[in-house]
Amino acid sequence: MKKVGIGIDIGGTNTQIGFVDKEGNVLLSTKMSTSIGETFEDYLDELYNTIEKAKKESNEDFDILGIGIGAPNANYYKGTIEFAANLRWKGVIEVTKLVTEKFGLPSVMTNDANAAAIGEMVFGGAKGMDDFIMITLGTGVGSGIVTGGKLVYGSDGFAGELGHVRVEKNGRLCGCGKRGCLETYTSATGIKRTAFEVMADRNEKTSLSSLSYDELTAFHIYEAANNGDHLAREIFRKTGTILGEALADFVAAGSPQAIFLFGGLSKAGDLILKPTEQAMEENLLHIFKNKVKVQFSHLDGDSAAVVGASALAWNEFDK
Amino acid sequence: MKKVGIGIDIGGTNTQIGFVDKEGNVLLSTKMSTSIGETFEDYLDELYNTIEKAKKESNEDFDILGIGIGAPNANYYKGTIEFAANLRWKGVIEVTKLVTEKFGLPSVMTNDANAAAIGEMVFGGAKGMDDFIMITLGTGVGSGIVTGGKLVYGSDGFAGELGHVRVEKNGRLCGCGKRGCLETYTSATGIKRTAFEVMADRNEKTSLSSLSYDELTAFHIYEAANNGDHLAREIFRKTGTILGEALADFVAAGSPQAIFLFGGLSKAGDLILKPTEQAMEENLLHIFKNKVKVQFSHLDGDSAAVVGASALAWNEFDK
Repeated sequence: MKKVGIGIDIGGTNTQIGFVDKEGNVLLSTKMSTSIGETFEDYLDELYNTIEKAKKESNEDFDILGIGIGAPNANYYKGTIEFAANLRWKGVIEVTKLVTEKFGLPSVMTNDANAAAIGEMVFGGAKGMDDFIMITLGTGVGSGIVTGGKLVYGSDGFAGELGHVRVEKNGRLCGCGKRGCLETYTSATGIKRTAFEVMADRNEKTSLSSLSYDELTAFHIYEAANNGDHLAREIFRKTGTILGEALADFVAAGSPQAIFLFGGLSKAGDLILKPTEQAMEENLLHIFKNKVKVQFSHLDGDSAAVVGASALAWNEFDK
Repeated sequence: MKKVGIGIDIGGTNTQIGFVDKEGNVLLSTKMSTSIGETFEDYLDELYNTIEKAKKESNEDFDILGIGIGAPNANYYKGTIEFAANLRWKGVIEVTKLVTEKFGLPSVMTNDANAAAIGEMVFGGAKGMDDFIMITLGTGVGSGIVTGGKLVYGSDGFAGELGHVRVEKNGRLCGCGKRGCLETYTSATGIKRTAFEVMADRNEKTSLSSLSYDELTAFHIYEAANNGDHLAREIFRKTGTILGEALADFVAAGSPQAIFLFGGLSKAGDLILKPTEQAMEENLLHIFKNKVKVQFSHLDGDSAAVVGASALAWNEFDK
């Protein structure tokens, strides 16, 4: 009988499910639509059936230690999803209580960036590290902060919103209503905004100038930069510089051993990493210089969300 | 026999010593010059004699549980003072090792801002709080961050340098070599710099305009503001606004239950508190609004450094 933690990643569109062993291997995986049914209870019925079906088809015997869930607007302390704009369930949903009742298993939940941090700590590059920061560079910018070997949840379970730290006074308007948040510069949308600013500033012909605001994506900028487009390379330099400057501040606060980058934009490799490292080092206090390693997550991008969610269960229930 | 922790605050000029009971009362206090002798060993001999003398004169019997030390550039993990610009001992001094050998007592050391945070947690307004931030507004700006009931020391023992978070791109030159650090705006020197900027901008006659840069202190600005000087009040508003905006970022990171202000500038009361609170609330993410209390330290300013240092000992050795 194989001991596993179930990881469930609840996304706006799909829910990914994985049975993950102690080494972080996904032994069984399945998925379903997140928008099934009207209520969370309908969704939960489908989730249960989906998992039972996958178990039956696998013909394996599993010793399940618990369920870890990654979800937007998740409150770790209460086990609730609260007012999630990207999910159809309104108000406050008592997720872990209902999941535990349904499955007869202990369950624990946090947001996806925190789950990624725990995943890195349990299975990835942060094994054995007591102090590190995970920055997720996706549609938005999220973070998970680990100090003294523990994830920082804060007084209400919502700590780690480094994507909404202000990096520019009177800067870009953010979806949160504030201006100048890190997220407006270093997310996938942020780098697109920078592309349009740079094009407006330079008025040069580039491979990006034929695309509309609706058409252009971070991937186009990545491709252009790889094909030697100077403007595209500068767009990455600007993005990395803003990220690195912000990281220097995060280091002053928490003095982490390492900072991990995760999510879509981190796929750009050195295009984003090099200017980030350089700007961070230039802006570090002397005592922190040449101490903090910026690196990409060691988790496999495709399964990272599920593996991270399962790591929550391994971290809490494998005593 | 009264159980006490010895608190030692090593300042640039004086060393303050206190015997502090479990309730935070200073039962015995003494002090000496920090610049006695040539080496740290000379200083330690004098420290030992000073404490023995005070004990003898008090005619009390103490059960001493250990020694807590607050000092600049203190490394909590190693118990060392490292390259402290304001102390005469050069290089790396193995303070806790030597103190423990000399006194035959366990000892622990951190910097003054961290000691203030522990003091607040053990004896002050943060009793029972698991997540809070202490900001010290003195000659410089320091901080102690507590999450999950533990002080954040980071990977090297030097975490909590919130005074060197950048609040203004290409802002004021800081003693650390960077530009735009919080410390350059919200320390005692920072508010003086703001005063000169505001006078330069307005070119109005005020009670401050008769003082030279060498003469003007934060206390003059405080007195002028209390006497109804509009410019002085605006200087406090600007200072509080910059502090409050920075606090909003710290809340996004750590979601503390409260933020405590300590040190010289906090003596200005509502002049600094009101604009700080207002700017913080205006810049908080929605999920954090109306949750975080900004308040002054509950510790008595005169004995706070020694009480904070003793709290380190109470926190670590009273098991």
